[in-house]
Amino acid sequence: MSLPDALAGHAAPPLAGLPHHDGSPLYVSTQHPGLGQAVGVRVRVPRRFGALRQARVRSNPDREPRYAEARIVHETPDAVWWQAELVVENPVHGYRFLLEDAAGGTWWLTSKGLSHIETRDVDDFRLVTHPAPPAWGESMVMYQVFPDRFARSAAADERTPPEWALPAAWGDEVIHQGPGTGEQFFGGDLAGVEEHLDHLDSLGVNLLYLTPVFPGRSNHRYDALSFDHVDPQLGGDEALVSLVAAAHARGIRVIGDLTTNHSGDAHEWFRAAYGNPEAAESAFYLWLDDGQTDYVSWLGFRSLPKFNWGSAELRARFIEGPDSVVARYLQPPFSLDGWRIDVANMTGRHREEDLNEEVRRTVRRTMVEVNPDTLLVGESTNDAAIDFTGDAWHGAMTYANFTRPLWNWLSVPGSPAGGGLGMTLGRTVDYTGRDFYAAHREFAAAFPWRIRLHTMNALDTHDTPRFLTSARPGVLPAAVGLAMTLPGIPVVWAGDEFGLTAADGEQARTPMPWGSVERSADTIGLYRRLIALKREHPALNGGGIRWLLATDDAVAFVRETAEECVLVLAARAAADVDLAGELPDDAELLEGAVSWSAGLVHVPGPAFHAWRLPGVELPSWEGLPASFGPSAG
Amino acid sequence: MSLPDALAGHAAPPLAGLPHHDGSPLYVSTQHPGLGQAVGVRVRVPRRFGALRQARVRSNPDREPRYAEARIVHETPDAVWWQAELVVENPVHGYRFLLEDAAGGTWWLTSKGLSHIETRDVDDFRLVTHPAPPAWGESMVMYQVFPDRFARSAAADERTPPEWALPAAWGDEVIHQGPGTGEQFFGGDLAGVEEHLDHLDSLGVNLLYLTPVFPGRSNHRYDALSFDHVDPQLGGDEALVSLVAAAHARGIRVIGDLTTNHSGDAHEWFRAAYGNPEAAESAFYLWLDDGQTDYVSWLGFRSLPKFNWGSAELRARFIEGPDSVVARYLQPPFSLDGWRIDVANMTGRHREEDLNEEVRRTVRRTMVEVNPDTLLVGESTNDAAIDFTGDAWHGAMTYANFTRPLWNWLSVPGSPAGGGLGMTLGRTVDYTGRDFYAAHREFAAAFPWRIRLHTMNALDTHDTPRFLTSARPGVLPAAVGLAMTLPGIPVVWAGDEFGLTAADGEQARTPMPWGSVERSADTIGLYRRLIALKREHPALNGGGIRWLLATDDAVAFVRETAEECVLVLAARAAADVDLAGELPDDAELLEGAVSWSAGLVHVPGPAFHAWRLPGVELPSWEGLPASFGPSAG
Repeated sequence: MSLPDALAGHAAPPLAGLPHHDGSPLYVSTQHPGLGQAVGVRVRVPRRFGALRQARVRSNPDREPRYAEARIVHETPDAVWWQAELVVENPVHGYRFLLEDAAGGTWWLTSKGLSHIETRDVDDFRLVTHPAPPAWGESMVMYQVFPDRFARSAAADERTPPEWALPAAWGDEVIHQGPGTGEQFFGGDLAGVEEHLDHLDSLGVNLLYLTPVFPGRSNHRYDALSFDHVDPQLGGDEALVSLVAAAHARGIRVIGDLTTNHSGDAHEWFRAAYGNPEAAESAFYLWLDDGQTDYVSWLGFRSLPKFNWGSAELRARFIEGPDSVVARYLQPPFSLDGWRIDVANMTGRHREEDLNEEVRRTVRRTMVEVNPDTLLVGESTNDAAIDFTGDAWHGAMTYANFTRPLWNWLSVPGSPAGGGLGMTLGRTVDYTGRDFYAAHREFAAAFPWRIRLHTMNALDTHDTPRFLTSARPGVLPAAVGLAMTLPGIPVVWAGDEFGLTAADGEQARTPMPWGSVERSADTIGLYRRLIALKREHPALNGGGIRWLLATDDAVAFVRETAEECVLVLAARAAADVDLAGELPDDAELLEGAVSWSAGLVHVPGPAFHAWRLPGVELPSWEGLPASFGPSAG
Repeated sequence: MSLPDALAGHAAPPLAGLPHHDGSPLYVSTQHPGLGQAVGVRVRVPRRFGALRQARVRSNPDREPRYAEARIVHETPDAVWWQAELVVENPVHGYRFLLEDAAGGTWWLTSKGLSHIETRDVDDFRLVTHPAPPAWGESMVMYQVFPDRFARSAAADERTPPEWALPAAWGDEVIHQGPGTGEQFFGGDLAGVEEHLDHLDSLGVNLLYLTPVFPGRSNHRYDALSFDHVDPQLGGDEALVSLVAAAHARGIRVIGDLTTNHSGDAHEWFRAAYGNPEAAESAFYLWLDDGQTDYVSWLGFRSLPKFNWGSAELRARFIEGPDSVVARYLQPPFSLDGWRIDVANMTGRHREEDLNEEVRRTVRRTMVEVNPDTLLVGESTNDAAIDFTGDAWHGAMTYANFTRPLWNWLSVPGSPAGGGLGMTLGRTVDYTGRDFYAAHREFAAAFPWRIRLHTMNALDTHDTPRFLTSARPGVLPAAVGLAMTLPGIPVVWAGDEFGLTAADGEQARTPMPWGSVERSADTIGLYRRLIALKREHPALNGGGIRWLLATDDAVAFVRETAEECVLVLAARAAADVDLAGELPDDAELLEGAVSWSAGLVHVPGPAFHAWRLPGVELPSWEGLPASFGPSAG
């Protein structure tokens, strides 16, 4: 492989020949450094890349570059490992490698890969000293439930639907556009979810994400009218307490959903402040007139007035301290395990004001005060990296890093995919496997490693069409397999395991077809098997990711730890794949039926395969000083 | 040209075939938009790129993408122009284009160029609503003077050198390492500068940048011991008043140099606070012990204690309000035209504290209060883009966007170039013209357009070796020509026009060889001619930049306005350049002697040429609404 090839925009294969670092434990001496701490960082240089004359690490404390020499610490038949030390001087400390090859050519190795020219600081790898995410976060498989559409308990029959609702029977068609879209009310409730925990158990998921459970005036409840209690239509507070307890008893954690950008216009705070400048809640919103009848709202939707985070009283009631909404539901009797924050990207931002950092940090500080062992993910549908530095959000619910690249590679080109998926022309475009790799890396590698491990990898959600609707034939195993094996928290949007389809996010909010469990046995089995793969192999949780190959129709990578490696191969069509040097003949095949020899794999069509390989044995990090100068910067 | 070629990492030639936008007046309806204002943005699509099916603009208000359809507003034989409108909703408003070609291929056009895959928001073009830079900023040619080494007036003979100084005679060798480096004292003064304004006039420069004039305990004076008065060794306050007045009389503006990261340990503020917790200046520094004898300093140099910008009293004395140091020297009798801020990148940053944004915004707010018609440039030697969004700094003194790429392309590979130049291996590496283009664009295009126009393009400075020291034979015209014609403020570091050489930044602080004006007539003439080129052609000041070509040995671009275009060709060696479609036979040759036909130019060796072409006639922007919804976001 010529180096220029390796540096082409789409990183021509084989990627396996390139020097590698990704911030995972194989490459960094600690995942939780403190300020002033000395940290060792390593880079793996494949022998086929050629020997290096020199390797240095560039750090960027206080935005002033500083260099440290690296030295060889380990050699194998395939690669040479270099190590350098740096001191973590800022809460988010950037670094990158500078490599000099035998010919004197110089190469920058950053989170984006290898470059002959210098690149921007935003491409740096990052060390983060902010409080760590919960230890369990990186080993989660998330199951997303939309309460009105998941399951209806007997108790639901006793309830009178709200006055705004259009009651529907479980089998009815979902109204997905025009009148009734937000009002069609199937009456699913939390007891219904609890009754189906067996289903979650049988899939093997261990994190339940509930979209809003607070009362609103719509079936999605993103227009909260109060945060004081769980919607009685869902069974009220008791039902949430009972569901969480039952889930915990099965080892399933539960997170809720809060919108910090806006409330509903029926919210008690908004109703108190509307037209009433004297109200205590007057400063909670962004009024456009003195009479407080005109106001800023989400994308101009009058029903969703935007919060004013300049208000200390709003912060105190909603996000700050043990009595806030954020804190209350993380404590007994509710004991939620964390929050997914809706519209996190727009929160606190309006015109010249940007309080987003203050708000997100306050939310997390409050969570740490009442229960640090909780997860905080924020919705940021496009490029999330700017706000996701490790200071507050543990991971992103976003579509740029995984969902969109996946649709573009594995869907029929030109498929409808607008709306929540954020497809720019409202439809999928034609990506090769190289494009998938490049687009995934562009956004995923922009996160610090710990953020990457907690970012949601969703095929689809309640805001998007269902993936299967437009998928190329036979690619579901590849799609689900990639969600389970790429760094991040895989998401199963309730119903996907039944092979549901839907043309848009509203239609995707399908009442669960509980009667078709038998008919969907194959798809459910596929999910069960691939979820088990993720959960049984630590390498697929916290392990580093080293890309091996990306072609038109196939991609391959390894997830690596000291204990084991898992080699993943996903293909959308028949392909001859050369994994020479990476796939030994005696590797243990974990998924799929395929034969290989001397690293050559022929897949006759769309496929997903995984193999288990030995771990990466490296010298210990012993001997690193606890910290070293200049400690005073 | 195949599109994939156009998208290769190093953007293969001809670049002229790619769609273009750069934020300049040809492409944006206003350079000074207000919040809520409607702005028109245009993209030029060369016919050789092919027809588009559709073009859209993606804006990112409050970090939530929003799309606007573009339409064709102008067609020429060479290109089709599309236009869309957006509303500026945040002080720094990002946008980019999405193009769909005739084959259905989709292409993102961002500040980094064209990409088939989505790219990060940091690549967006940016509109900025913060107060505008001074109108004169973009038409400056800067001349940098290091007072101790520029010229010595007769009055200097009357002065007794400071006790720390090692007096030297004008012809002495510069001590550039070891003892005496900072103490060698040639005794240049401000009257000496004033006596040589004829020289600046004859070169044609119109902006004088003086490195520090406040008293210190070194020849560079970056270790200020007071800001209350100009160093008596330089002639004191009167000498500065007189110099600025004389410069202004010749139409030459003058900016000073302040260090906001640290002071000298002899500074009156530090001396008052050292060991004295009771002192009013106690909070001005970052003490490491209760007794205030150990402290944070610049890169650990004890003589340069770092400021603590958490101190309101420090802000009041130094940067905030009409009585501050920042304000005082911009007002009569001094009337400086602005400041260059030293170590701007590290200012206010230490460990978990980052007050940089607050400090830089306060500095600019103070300047606007006392005289908005002033320039503020900040030193940020590496990637400056993160801090240079338009909120405070007008431009950067940096090396990543121009100086380093230029050295790597035009110097003998492996030349010493460490130190201030920030060369990562301490020497130049081998860049092709494509690498020069890519590295320049990587950093320069990351700035909003207005920042790019005020960023310093220096061949070298008082912190680097002199460019000529290691330049390939004959490339000086190309180097100076690029400094004068690329967007930004070209810098002439005093002595470069005499063809001086120096192996490092200390040695570069050469006493000016006034006796050799005759011997240096050719080099001085080259500078005079190329400075005149910049000053006589508005296109080389505010005009957009559209790259035409980048090969191993040559680069070419046009700077464009409605009135005129200037086509620039720079080569480091003999080259046959094809500018077909861009260089008509009847173009007016402005610089150099060369013949061309049908766009074909043969340069026999290193060269710099410029041609004048007709301006770009486009439809007016009339008909844009003053603003449109959703005004409330």
